[in-house]
Amino acid sequence: MTRLKLNCDLGEGYGAWHLGDDEHIMPLIDQANIACGFHAGDPSTMLSSLMLAKKHQVEIGAHPSYPDRVGFGRRSMRIAPQDLYNDILYQTAALAGMATTLQTQVTYIKPHGALYHDMLSQLETFKALLQVAKDCALKLMVPAGATTDPMREQAAHVGVDLLFEAFADRRYTRHKTLLARSQPGAVLSQSEMLNQARRLMTEGRVISDCGAAINLRAETLCVHGDSPSALAALTELRDLVDHCVN
Amino acid sequence: MTRLKLNCDLGEGYGAWHLGDDEHIMPLIDQANIACGFHAGDPSTMLSSLMLAKKHQVEIGAHPSYPDRVGFGRRSMRIAPQDLYNDILYQTAALAGMATTLQTQVTYIKPHGALYHDMLSQLETFKALLQVAKDCALKLMVPAGATTDPMREQAAHVGVDLLFEAFADRRYTRHKTLLARSQPGAVLSQSEMLNQARRLMTEGRVISDCGAAINLRAETLCVHGDSPSALAALTELRDLVDHCVN
Amino acid sequence: MTRLKLNCDLGEGYGAWHLGDDEHIMPLIDQANIACGFHAGDPSTMLSSLMLAKKHQVEIGAHPSYPDRVGFGRRSMRIAPQDLYNDILYQTAALAGMATTLQTQVTYIKPHGALYHDMLSQLETFKALLQVAKDCALKLMVPAGATTDPMREQAAHVGVDLLFEAFADRRYTRHKTLLARSQPGAVLSQSEMLNQARRLMTEGRVISDCGAAINLRAETLCVHGDSPSALAALTELRDLVDHCVN
Amino acid sequence: MTRLKLNCDLGEGYGAWHLGDDEHIMPLIDQANIACGFHAGDPSTMLSSLMLAKKHQVEIGAHPSYPDRVGFGRRSMRIAPQDLYNDILYQTAALAGMATTLQTQVTYIKPHGALYHDMLSQLETFKALLQVAKDCALKLMVPAGATTDPMREQAAHVGVDLLFEAFADRRYTRHKTLLARSQPGAVLSQSEMLNQARRLMTEGRVISDCGAAINLRAETLCVHGDSPSALAALTELRDLVDHCVN
Repeated sequence: MTRLKLNCDLGEGYGAWHLGDDEHIMPLIDQANIACGFHAGDPSTMLSSLMLAKKHQVEIGAHPSYPDRVGFGRRSMRIAPQDLYNDILYQTAALAGMATTLQTQVTYIKPHGALYHDMLSQLETFKALLQVAKDCALKLMVPAGATTDPMREQAAHVGVDLLFEAFADRRYTRHKTLLARSQPGAVLSQSEMLNQARRLMTEGRVISDCGAAINLRAETLCVHGDSPSALAALTELRDLVDHCVN
Repeated sequence: MTRLKLNCDLGEGYGAWHLGDDEHIMPLIDQANIACGFHAGDPSTMLSSLMLAKKHQVEIGAHPSYPDRVGFGRRSMRIAPQDLYNDILYQTAALAGMATTLQTQVTYIKPHGALYHDMLSQLETFKALLQVAKDCALKLMVPAGATTDPMREQAAHVGVDLLFEAFADRRYTRHKTLLARSQPGAVLSQSEMLNQARRLMTEGRVISDCGAAINLRAETLCVHGDSPSALAALTELRDLVDHCVN
Repeated sequence: MTRLKLNCDLGEGYGAWHLGDDEHIMPLIDQANIACGFHAGDPSTMLSSLMLAKKHQVEIGAHPSYPDRVGFGRRSMRIAPQDLYNDILYQTAALAGMATTLQTQVTYIKPHGALYHDMLSQLETFKALLQVAKDCALKLMVPAGATTDPMREQAAHVGVDLLFEAFADRRYTRHKTLLARSQPGAVLSQSEMLNQARRLMTEGRVISDCGAAINLRAETLCVHGDSPSALAALTELRDLVDHCVN
Repeated sequence: MTRLKLNCDLGEGYGAWHLGDDEHIMPLIDQANIACGFHAGDPSTMLSSLMLAKKHQVEIGAHPSYPDRVGFGRRSMRIAPQDLYNDILYQTAALAGMATTLQTQVTYIKPHGALYHDMLSQLETFKALLQVAKDCALKLMVPAGATTDPMREQAAHVGVDLLFEAFADRRYTRHKTLLARSQPGAVLSQSEMLNQARRLMTEGRVISDCGAAINLRAETLCVHGDSPSALAALTELRDLVDHCVN
């Protein structure tokens, strides 16, 4: 039986704009991935998010992005590796320094949106993230699945600890990748999600789209809470996780 | 005889745009005020500036600004004090964290442009700066002159060390303020500048616009180097300072 | 009996962020003040807003702002008049040009947030707005009340038509200014708002905070619809206006 | 004998930052590609550029970019076609509207940087540009060479006129593409550049990297003037073009 942590993207408003129900999500999760200003998260939003995380004793991760606010960091950008390293470092340093003034700390990095996806297929992007994690003495959160082994190898080479995450509400293929959102059944129903989470904790496996169980070793589960139904599902998930360990 | 340090604003390019001759200025100064992204200074420019400062063993100051890139931070903005604190903290933390990865460090804050000016007349603005300095364990650079005493008092109250600076190339009034740029004689010639610097170091005084010597206790001299003639003047100033201490 | 138009700020999202319930508000109003990119309104949001306005045959106004996205244009900035003119022109031209490609058009300018407020006390700001209105052959929307006469004079001098607006849900002082939000009773209840609108149309007057009726000649009423209750109130207001003319 | 026009990117400063020697370049060219705010060109810079172009009777093109100021529009971004259309339209409309207030006009679009390159390989990107050109009744500037025929076909389908440009200082391959900058000889010397321009005008051909003459039908020549030597070369080119027609 492995206890899974629950991680969620938070602090994704900007100035007058709000996104997500951070107040209600934060008490239900273990790890908050906080936006650092490049896709979302102005300084005031960042500080509020840090305070909220601290209040609920939630572990804090930096959630850096490509510099693309209008695109919410969802669009791939071809950035030179050294510039990308600098962009990630700037965001991470800003959040980490703010956390320090609140007597708390950032412990890991989870890249956002297109940067997250690009790290899976572009070695230089992954290396830039690893290097920032290394230079800031942080862990790096990456997906469990198809890329686990090569990622582990690269990370070991640099000397960075990885945090492997599974996706609570997404169906996996037998290749340990996520079934594309465009495919039917790609997004799980609430009961399927709870089953997937339970199986991950009890067996270290998920049922893939072809019906076969596949091994998937994850320490943390990526969740969403940005709708009333998502929040209800998250509450159930929190319950499930808490009971699994007792 | 007081040795004066020389401080200069640097790293004020942005992406493809450059401003100032940082390569030639850095070896001539003691303290570099490095832009942090809000008026100038993208992450890559910031890292280059930090590396250059480290190479020449120049002390590093964060040079935060109002969030106004198109206005180069020269335009006053009416920002709520808590938001302003957050803006300054974000910038300072980003630069300080980047410096740490280079095994160097930020030791002080010098506000930029309109933020610098507003701190002289708006107590809440000054307090926001003091609080960031306090929370980040940094000094705060402010002008020597008319506001020295009230600033010292506020800073002592919070527990922040101030660095008082004089302006090398600007004429002072007998009220220990700078003569407005619109006035004749407001900007000193090179020889006047050298005389003013010499007198500051030997007597702790400058000659004001009405001809009278006024006391001005400064530890550092704000200089510019962004033109060939300015660079020549800066070289002379460097010489002067170095000889004064021998 | 004067028929009042209803005007509302719309298109104030940005990228992934949404603000207000434009879909439900648009059918209820006569004039849409559409954000142009500087405080809100990326190009895609702008185009959607224009299409929605066209669909409901709503008159379109440009809603330019100071360049301050993170502050939502609510913070005063000290911008040189020529730069301000250019900022307003850029935003207005962008929206107007987009409207043209949809075979519709922008007919007026209503400045946003701090720019709106600053125009009331800073002559140069008002002149910059007038000049853009003049150069783009647009009307300019301004508040009815204390500043009506001097504004009318300036506008006549330049040759710009003004649209005077009253505020549906705000209480006026006997000086024909808005009672500050910090004061009790500054924001009207729904029934007070409807009474104020009715009186404006039938008598051209409102009841001020001291109980006296004051003259207020307005052609349009500024309304909000960004909450369920506001939307309900707006629906009543629409009814009231439609009945007044029949 | 075909007279070639000379086109150049201008107005590529931003706020306090300047780039290129627009004052000296403008009198030497026929067509100015003016930045519209997304990679460079704040409203004040844009207005100055428009006034300078008008003064020297230079034809004006909109020079839109991906929304990437810190990357100067040089980095490819994966933007949804409809959003890209909106981004290009916004920039073009802003410049065109500003031009109108100066009693001048924009006549064509030339995409900038990565957007220019992407239009050559991504049909949807090219189509977005064509559609904006169509909707704004403008021409579209594209490279002469390998892509001439398919581009002409697409443009004819939409009903947009293309302006084909050759590059003055770049060597062509026999496939009518530019020799990559990483290759030796990719950038021409001043005398080679003048020869290439002369041959283009007299023969409609250039000498490719393998020594063979290839046909290249261009109406305009893309030039640079952002260094003293480039400006000297541009002066010679201006002379050459002016003599060719006499």
